[in-house]
Amino acid sequence: MSDTPTFEEERARLQELVLEKGTRTSKRFFNLDQAAYRDGALTARTKELLGLVASTVLRCDDCIHYHLNRTQELGFSHDEIREALDVALIVGGSITIPHVRRAYGVLEETEDRCGE
Amino acid sequence: MSDTPTFEEERARLQELVLEKGTRTSKRFFNLDQAAYRDGALTARTKELLGLVASTVLRCDDCIHYHLNRTQELGFSHDEIREALDVALIVGGSITIPHVRRAYGVLEETEDRCGE
Amino acid sequence: MSDTPTFEEERARLQELVLEKGTRTSKRFFNLDQAAYRDGALTARTKELLGLVASTVLRCDDCIHYHLNRTQELGFSHDEIREALDVALIVGGSITIPHVRRAYGVLEETEDRCGE
Amino acid sequence: MSDTPTFEEERARLQELVLEKGTRTSKRFFNLDQAAYRDGALTARTKELLGLVASTVLRCDDCIHYHLNRTQELGFSHDEIREALDVALIVGGSITIPHVRRAYGVLEETEDRCGE
Amino acid sequence: MSDTPTFEEERARLQELVLEKGTRTSKRFFNLDQAAYRDGALTARTKELLGLVASTVLRCDDCIHYHLNRTQELGFSHDEIREALDVALIVGGSITIPHVRRAYGVLEETEDRCGE
Amino acid sequence: MSDTPTFEEERARLQELVLEKGTRTSKRFFNLDQAAYRDGALTARTKELLGLVASTVLRCDDCIHYHLNRTQELGFSHDEIREALDVALIVGGSITIPHVRRAYGVLEETEDRCGE
Repeated sequence: MSDTPTFEEERARLQELVLEKGTRTSKRFFNLDQAAYRDGALTARTKELLGLVASTVLRCDDCIHYHLNRTQELGFSHDEIREALDVALIVGGSITIPHVRRAYGVLEETEDRCGE
Repeated sequence: MSDTPTFEEERARLQELVLEKGTRTSKRFFNLDQAAYRDGALTARTKELLGLVASTVLRCDDCIHYHLNRTQELGFSHDEIREALDVALIVGGSITIPHVRRAYGVLEETEDRCGE
Repeated sequence: MSDTPTFEEERARLQELVLEKGTRTSKRFFNLDQAAYRDGALTARTKELLGLVASTVLRCDDCIHYHLNRTQELGFSHDEIREALDVALIVGGSITIPHVRRAYGVLEETEDRCGE
Repeated sequence: MSDTPTFEEERARLQELVLEKGTRTSKRFFNLDQAAYRDGALTARTKELLGLVASTVLRCDDCIHYHLNRTQELGFSHDEIREALDVALIVGGSITIPHVRRAYGVLEETEDRCGE
Repeated sequence: MSDTPTFEEERARLQELVLEKGTRTSKRFFNLDQAAYRDGALTARTKELLGLVASTVLRCDDCIHYHLNRTQELGFSHDEIREALDVALIVGGSITIPHVRRAYGVLEETEDRCGE
Repeated sequence: MSDTPTFEEERARLQELVLEKGTRTSKRFFNLDQAAYRDGALTARTKELLGLVASTVLRCDDCIHYHLNRTQELGFSHDEIREALDVALIVGGSITIPHVRRAYGVLEETEDRCGE
């Protein structure tokens, strides 16, 4: 995988590629994808945690990485994130372990700004 | 499917069947499954919502039904639950629609105790 | 499952339920879902067949049923549909067999308007 | 689901439908599907247990039911089958619980011919 | 992942490895896999597009890459391929985005022989 | 993927990371995961083969690699392992081929201690 070093850059390159070449459908989907995580009856913060767990049970490393960044930006501590990953681990089973493992690795590279 | 009328009863029957016939491994897993949703760094309430979204993207009607009951017991309004289902719908795509549809059906059968 | 007799009616009930209670996100997704199957560089006809195969490998009976109706309305013969199901069967493996079986059952209930 | 009462009959009806209407590809796949479970370096007996676990982690009730019948015909005891289901439960997580529950239900309807 | 540079070579190495070491079952499956994409009631061309969408919703980068090569060889334009990917994106949801992104990357490396 | 050279080391690093930072839930799950593969009504040997097939149909390269190592340690020959992979290939379809291919590659790097 090794998307860690350039993960944010690759994601930025995608956005540009889609803006340049993408269909109207794909652009509408990208907009809707962003809208679904905005404050509403639930906070953007809670929705981001939902996105992290959904990504983990569906076993998508890129998606997990993105939501790990976002949940930390929105102030979740490592302890809180690890408990969200626990729910994913129990729901999704041992087949999620390699992804949970890589998620722990990503967390280790980030200072826990909420103290621990 | 039609598990709606006796959903809670069937779930109760399972617990008894597992207590009677289940292996030690399955019993330990059932205990761990319950432990993962208890208050910790995240509240039990938040974890239940994570379970709902995980169940929806993995498209398990029985699991969705169970977490719909639990999230309502723990005080989430229909508006909040529908926004959680939105995240699942966007992450999981149109293939989740039949499950989201049945989830809306379950919600309609329940009074929204949080007002709406 | 037994969604066959009232499949179209239930789908209609959903549309109304979503129009009445659904979030803005879910309504936007439903609109986008319809837009993705319209004529473009590819015909609506071809896209419907793509939807059938996607639904079959992801093993969603309701989705398969819907796309079986649509592909027949758009003029695909039973022979053509069965070859599309073949691709799904080979890509998705024997785990798709119960769904392919139910798809054959749905086809049998429909006259092949393209002759056979 | 409720495929229990007529499960074997429906499966028989499928075989006839495929023999009558199926493509050459689907018939070749059905033959190959049967060949993969025959005695070889591994026994047919062991392969059937592999099929049961594969079906359980992929969460296909019809497939689980079929392999539960077959593994019992080939002499596995309920205790052995429950341990195979344990592996599926741990690998696949709590999302498999409704399927494991229904598998326990199927086992209960069958006398354990291997004693218990 | 980074299978892009040697993708075709690795695939060739596999065919040789399977021809040398593979079981009779695996060889029969490989033959059947090829047969399912040949001209019949549907053209080979259409079937290849079905394979692309099936591979995308099941999120298999190697499979997507293979079908991207094949669909272009069979004369689909980039516009047509992107609309097929749209169907996969809508059916499969945002979890397919990293794969759709890599598919766009593969397309960019290839001249659109159908003009654009 | 290229996890082959340091696969065992990375797995060891995970165990330490989980022992140091993991939640109680994750540690309990890891213990239970190991317990599920111990001798019981079925042998540890058979259970490991079940784990291999479950990992293959769920398409997790790390999990497949781990179970390939374990099944060989427990005395399964390459012929036996290839037949287990056949069951996974037939159940899971052509989408599993890239994973089966990499499994064959891992086998080739290992001497078949059971003779062939």
